[in-house]
Amino acid sequence: MQKRGVAALIFLVVGFGLGAMKSKSDAKTEVLKADEEFSRVTNERGIEGFASFIADDFYTIRPNSPIIGKKEIVASWSDMMRKDNTTPTWKPLLAVVSASGDLGYTIGTAEFHKTDDSARPVTGTGKYVTVWKKQRDGLWKVILDTGVMDTAASKQ
Amino acid sequence: MQKRGVAALIFLVVGFGLGAMKSKSDAKTEVLKADEEFSRVTNERGIEGFASFIADDFYTIRPNSPIIGKKEIVASWSDMMRKDNTTPTWKPLLAVVSASGDLGYTIGTAEFHKTDDSARPVTGTGKYVTVWKKQRDGLWKVILDTGVMDTAASKQ
Repeated sequence: MQKRGVAALIFLVVGFGLGAMKSKSDAKTEVLKADEEFSRVTNERGIEGFASFIADDFYTIRPNSPIIGKKEIVASWSDMMRKDNTTPTWKPLLAVVSASGDLGYTIGTAEFHKTDDSARPVTGTGKYVTVWKKQRDGLWKVILDTGVMDTAASKQ
Repeated sequence: MQKRGVAALIFLVVGFGLGAMKSKSDAKTEVLKADEEFSRVTNERGIEGFASFIADDFYTIRPNSPIIGKKEIVASWSDMMRKDNTTPTWKPLLAVVSASGDLGYTIGTAEFHKTDDSARPVTGTGKYVTVWKKQRDGLWKVILDTGVMDTAASKQ
């Protein structure tokens, strides 16, 4: 193989390597930002905002239920936000992403604000895990989301 | 650039593409197999078997607790298996992996068998999400694990 061919190959391989390192670092920043956006947009636009972040191949687990998908999670959050009048907010604490920068997860803390029957504000807290997948258009969407609620102090 | 250089580049780029497709397909099979092995080894070798699958950068979420790591999850499972004499088994239902074949998650169903104070067998069931990361030596290890328990039929 000619020298120019070899040089091109070396350039390409090194380029792939540096590109992969950059894409992983960028992906981590992107996933953390996407998670913050997910919370902000859900609060600004309600259930439509929430649904816009859920990928078509979304799955999650629930007690006493088969695995559920996008339709069921959107219906469940719609009930929580509309009927139960709950405002959920959350913030990621850390992210881990794949070498290819197309898959990652975030862990974060969540707050659920609502008013009780006496119009007093009530806040529930919890933690969540969200798995993110970069879509063909470059946007990150949620393919899995699950969490735990802290028990109320009065019940501990 | 000479024709041979161009041909080499095309060969390399197509090769990368096919390699990525293969590594993703292989990774999915590997992750499902790793999850089944994780259950089998945990039952055969107890807490040491369980711990051998947990990566050093493991994290998970618990109610009323900061994020916990490898040390805490191994201590927690050790208590469950030894003091509470529980035998956990599980089986993955699906897996999703990154394009690079180095990160993926499984969803599955779990059973927790033990005997109550009257020596009667008791079985709890639940579902889990496990995030897997391929290690430098090619082995898949668990970097995140969380789940939900079904409530007992008598309590529903």
